[in-house]
Amino acid sequence: MRYELYYWPQIQGRGEFVRLALEEAEADYVDVARKPGGEGKMMALMAAPRSETPPFAPPFLKAGKLLIAQTANILLYLGERHALAPKSQAGRLWVHQLQLTIADLVVEVHDTHHPIGAGLYYEDQKREAARRADDFRAHRAPKFFGYFERVLGVSGGPYFTGRRATYADLSLFQVVEGMHYAFPRLSKALAKKHPRVVELHQRVAARPRVAAYLKSERRIPFNTMGIFRAYEELDS
Amino acid sequence: MRYELYYWPQIQGRGEFVRLALEEAEADYVDVARKPGGEGKMMALMAAPRSETPPFAPPFLKAGKLLIAQTANILLYLGERHALAPKSQAGRLWVHQLQLTIADLVVEVHDTHHPIGAGLYYEDQKREAARRADDFRAHRAPKFFGYFERVLGVSGGPYFTGRRATYADLSLFQVVEGMHYAFPRLSKALAKKHPRVVELHQRVAARPRVAAYLKSERRIPFNTMGIFRAYEELDS
Repeated sequence: MRYELYYWPQIQGRGEFVRLALEEAEADYVDVARKPGGEGKMMALMAAPRSETPPFAPPFLKAGKLLIAQTANILLYLGERHALAPKSQAGRLWVHQLQLTIADLVVEVHDTHHPIGAGLYYEDQKREAARRADDFRAHRAPKFFGYFERVLGVSGGPYFTGRRATYADLSLFQVVEGMHYAFPRLSKALAKKHPRVVELHQRVAARPRVAAYLKSERRIPFNTMGIFRAYEELDS
Repeated sequence: MRYELYYWPQIQGRGEFVRLALEEAEADYVDVARKPGGEGKMMALMAAPRSETPPFAPPFLKAGKLLIAQTANILLYLGERHALAPKSQAGRLWVHQLQLTIADLVVEVHDTHHPIGAGLYYEDQKREAARRADDFRAHRAPKFFGYFERVLGVSGGPYFTGRRATYADLSLFQVVEGMHYAFPRLSKALAKKHPRVVELHQRVAARPRVAAYLKSERRIPFNTMGIFRAYEELDS
């Protein structure tokens, strides 16, 4: 079965968490909206009036007859099918819990540059963004990173559940990558205090399929349209 | 097995989505932090250094040996055990997708009064809150409600998947309740355009176990410490 991934073609965004899982699983997939006419196809699928499981927003994944949306939900599905999650119920719930916590962090990263409205330009909410980013750097980012460090300490690492990588590990890798891009100064400070998170990031980056993906054209570069945005004023 | 629910005892908050599922399931549970000494027990469990699956934040549920956090993840678990979700994989993923979309809306509701930082007082971010609430009323709330209305139109109602209530229906009920409390003016306008959402809300409220719960002392009243807050200036 060839998966069809639907996501905005200009950015990594939330779609990237799905792309990383598909790549690590060596799954057969097409990134539909990056093909000619694909973005129109994505919009049509979202608007299809008789769709029984319409997505609220991208990303979504077509898997045979299934149409699955919500990043963490897509990963729940892929994790089970491609051994990117433990087999036990306890293990599956735990990895999903970690993914949902990562998703919460991703919302907070987004809101550092869009604290007022996703439909407004950054330039129209710069003052509020500066305040929100202050709070993020001082309180929220350290809290999340401290939590992940703690979990890795208990598991013994290098991954969240020990020696096998799960989709939550791929997602934390992506968050660390994004933080390097968007908050280089903050990232340096966080790295010093969270060596296990640093090691997880390096381990995932070195996995052969991930490494090949990151060097490929399939990996869209970070840019100032995505979730992680390099606005120097928000990092100091 | 008696479940132990852990959540802040002063508010409905995110814990309420779990409480509603437990009540509808007629599950045996104790709301630990509302008992004498319970809040300390909750904090101790969160901080337990050797915990292998520590929660990032409440709510969390102790179910035998399992310690499960993240609201949607707890509901995923309870839904399967208590027939509050379809049995098919497609159905389970769909209801979880809806729950995650409701969770996104809940974050946005919270951020109408806390757009800058959850650790700051509302009074310290009132100006930003006014702007964020404007955007929420004008764009975000109508978008979410329009989406839910559309889904109910396709399913035929009265519930998201048709004739059987799932945890996502209980959660949408809670959102509508919260909107009535926090945004009475906006809610009136939304109700006119979204009759199927209104009907779902009424149907859930009339379910015998839910109705009994809502009248009981187990239901904490809405207040201005929770996610849904009645600040008149954010509703006009």
